[in-house]
Amino acid sequence: MAIDYDKLMAWPFEDVRHRYTRRDTMLYALGLGMGADPMDEAELRYVYEKNLVALPTLPVVLGYPGMWLKDPATGVDAVRLVHGEQSLVIHRHPAPEGEVIGRTRVTGIVDKGAGKGALLYTERTVSDAASGELLFTLGSTTFCRADGGFGGPSGPVKPVHELPTRAPDAGVDRETPAGLALIYRLSGDYNPLHAEPAVAKAAGFERPILHGLASYGIAGWALTQAAGGGDPSRIASIETRFSSPVYPGETIRTELWIDGKTVSFRARVVERDVVVLNNGRAVLR
Amino acid sequence: MAIDYDKLMAWPFEDVRHRYTRRDTMLYALGLGMGADPMDEAELRYVYEKNLVALPTLPVVLGYPGMWLKDPATGVDAVRLVHGEQSLVIHRHPAPEGEVIGRTRVTGIVDKGAGKGALLYTERTVSDAASGELLFTLGSTTFCRADGGFGGPSGPVKPVHELPTRAPDAGVDRETPAGLALIYRLSGDYNPLHAEPAVAKAAGFERPILHGLASYGIAGWALTQAAGGGDPSRIASIETRFSSPVYPGETIRTELWIDGKTVSFRARVVERDVVVLNNGRAVLR
Repeated sequence: MAIDYDKLMAWPFEDVRHRYTRRDTMLYALGLGMGADPMDEAELRYVYEKNLVALPTLPVVLGYPGMWLKDPATGVDAVRLVHGEQSLVIHRHPAPEGEVIGRTRVTGIVDKGAGKGALLYTERTVSDAASGELLFTLGSTTFCRADGGFGGPSGPVKPVHELPTRAPDAGVDRETPAGLALIYRLSGDYNPLHAEPAVAKAAGFERPILHGLASYGIAGWALTQAAGGGDPSRIASIETRFSSPVYPGETIRTELWIDGKTVSFRARVVERDVVVLNNGRAVLR
Repeated sequence: MAIDYDKLMAWPFEDVRHRYTRRDTMLYALGLGMGADPMDEAELRYVYEKNLVALPTLPVVLGYPGMWLKDPATGVDAVRLVHGEQSLVIHRHPAPEGEVIGRTRVTGIVDKGAGKGALLYTERTVSDAASGELLFTLGSTTFCRADGGFGGPSGPVKPVHELPTRAPDAGVDRETPAGLALIYRLSGDYNPLHAEPAVAKAAGFERPILHGLASYGIAGWALTQAAGGGDPSRIASIETRFSSPVYPGETIRTELWIDGKTVSFRARVVERDVVVLNNGRAVLR
């Protein structure tokens, strides 16, 4: 079934009411490998309820609508889609617990042509359930590899942030444990691609891959360390493009260029020297 | 304040109604380090919702009454108590999700004399909330190091299971990650001794120690592997004595003696060659 542009643009998402606890906030950070050195007290604040602080990227798992593109009525071939880009604007640093409402909508679909796939843009706002205050705005680009040529518009395509041409100003390495995806998925993205060897193999990977948003979270931590003076609340926004998968167990090196309040970044897997996040941009408060 | 024997024997516990989910069951297993090799499919069943199976020791975190001995009215010096022994009888292998009711009572207090501490025995039954079926019976011995000499009875003391004198029939090694206690604690035992370096130091440890019940869970997994043919539902009961703490990051070697349906066991930390679980006995179905 092909994409029906008007139908997909008007896809009816239900509001997602999401109460999250301190335990959820700690589990999210543990799913990024925080606490690997339990004597590192700067990191302990992400995984221990005393003085608990949320990582800046916690919002990616709040008010999440689930794998809605698995619904055949979307017309999308869910097996062949790839998470292409993710943006996050943090209007207020996430509280360690709360109740929020996530509202998702499709904001654009670009037809790259038959055999070339389609781009699907969605936006999610996450608001405080009690006050209605807008807390976070998330943007996601899904690359639907099998769905080009449905007769949709050829633009507009979101512009790409160009990285500086000079060498990076800093680099932050983070080893990931081999079992990390199994912890990360408990934060809500239960796609079997990240757990079941046979599913990963069928998708063309030698073993289950790490969630793109887990790499994103690790980059957010690295930005906090290298550009935010260790203060996660200084991160105002983060956007990046997913360029290649990470296998749990690999080391992620986030490379940064700091230009005032704008930080450009990318991330690579050290062991394979492959760029996994590219064209990244963060803004500091 | 000293222990008041009659008051503590009659300590009024409230029933603990506990609904646990598949996510909780997976998180419990992740807290024991399961899934460290995500390509090990035999282990994946403990941490992945498809074909999910509970570890035999999951009941230790079900219907748990919390750190009730912290209440000064118990008369116990909570800072100086130590988890001494744990038993678990599994009447029915735990379901991967459910709703249960835990009922705890004090079953005995033994006064070892002034300066020698006291032993506090408790029993917890865990029943299915809907049917009332008794699922698990747990026994716990707390060694209250500072509370001897309160004028209580000098017995009866629970007999110790003597290990065979021959060399063990099998040994199963399990490396633990340094951050393991931070994951395990999300299953409900939030004692800061397992997370906060300053608290651990004040208690006389160089760094936060692993939960005794995490070592117990790892021994339960080892029993399943070496004596249960890999089938966790074959474990009918497990009891042991906690003889020394484990630091997260160490390797736990469970040593077993198999005599028909009775399995004797102990566990040691390989790196320090210290016995951490002793006088263990399990019964197979």
